[in-house]
Amino acid sequence: MSSPRRKRAGRPPGTSDTRERILVNARELFARNGIGNTSIRAIAAASDVDSALVHHYFGTKEQLFAAAVHIPIDPLQILGPMREVPLEDLGLTLPSLLLPLWDSEIGAGFIATLRSLLAGDDVSLIRSFLQDVISVEIGSRVDDPPGSGPIRVQFVASQLVGVVLARYILELEPFKSLPVQQIAETIAPNLQRYLTGDLPGLS
Amino acid sequence: MSSPRRKRAGRPPGTSDTRERILVNARELFARNGIGNTSIRAIAAASDVDSALVHHYFGTKEQLFAAAVHIPIDPLQILGPMREVPLEDLGLTLPSLLLPLWDSEIGAGFIATLRSLLAGDDVSLIRSFLQDVISVEIGSRVDDPPGSGPIRVQFVASQLVGVVLARYILELEPFKSLPVQQIAETIAPNLQRYLTGDLPGLS
Repeated sequence: MSSPRRKRAGRPPGTSDTRERILVNARELFARNGIGNTSIRAIAAASDVDSALVHHYFGTKEQLFAAAVHIPIDPLQILGPMREVPLEDLGLTLPSLLLPLWDSEIGAGFIATLRSLLAGDDVSLIRSFLQDVISVEIGSRVDDPPGSGPIRVQFVASQLVGVVLARYILELEPFKSLPVQQIAETIAPNLQRYLTGDLPGLS
Repeated sequence: MSSPRRKRAGRPPGTSDTRERILVNARELFARNGIGNTSIRAIAAASDVDSALVHHYFGTKEQLFAAAVHIPIDPLQILGPMREVPLEDLGLTLPSLLLPLWDSEIGAGFIATLRSLLAGDDVSLIRSFLQDVISVEIGSRVDDPPGSGPIRVQFVASQLVGVVLARYILELEPFKSLPVQQIAETIAPNLQRYLTGDLPGLS
């Protein structure tokens, strides 16, 4: 695989500076305006480069977001397959996909990022990810009655971030050491109820 | 009401220093050894004062813990009444008591403390509170089959801290603005399932 370095013999010096500048601007714009309201073009303009260069370095907007918050995977790699899962299996599929990921090496970086974002004043990156990406991807599938999708998804998010907190940050025992499958199966019916159950105030 | 200040005319100078020294030592010992394994006597000894003075300033060990982590209420004021609630009502009673508290002025201080504890490397104070106080108070009531109590309580904790995160720290909308009663009633059946339901891996 050829790297951008080799391909662009005539590029200006300071490629890694440029990448870093794009990431800094991306983080700032995503935080200020949300993922949905931030375009690759705006990030490119703020970074004084061409949109094509941003795509070349980082791929899609979601991939750029992942790079900006140091998530070492494309969020849509998880969220894409979720589109294919039958609605009534979402409650189990969601934690079954996420927990092994969080438990992995990859997850360690994500947990560290989550923690530093929580520590800072600026949690807008997480909020935007949950509201713009998860709500759009999953919320639209469970929007019954109409308008309930975002609320359903946010209850799901509350349980999932709570698991992250209890298992990886507070490190409660025995919770921290329970098998992934046990946690996934324990929370699955509750997640499923949030997604497709009759919830107070939604009808 | 007479303050300690007025009562102890002959006290050595630097009363507020003494109080602060006790709090610092309490925080350190609670964090290092947990609440259960820390005695008022040990805190008094570390602070070079008499146990009676610690009780005089702060009351019970739980009240001292609350003061040390800036929770402006006695945790047992919440947990005490929970002992009287029928088991099958715990799932609704727990969030119905906690959410108005978190929403209040009092709660703002608690959320700020939680956040700074999460930001620091040392989450052992929260962990100890959940494991030593909540698990003992509530876990013992739902320990069926025997040994399952702490796990049940930790699943409950995962949902409750997730609500705190979503509502007060991430401030997701509309979650942040939902009426307390709607959140309490929405999560109640899920909490109840964690407390008294058939859970995978526990039988």
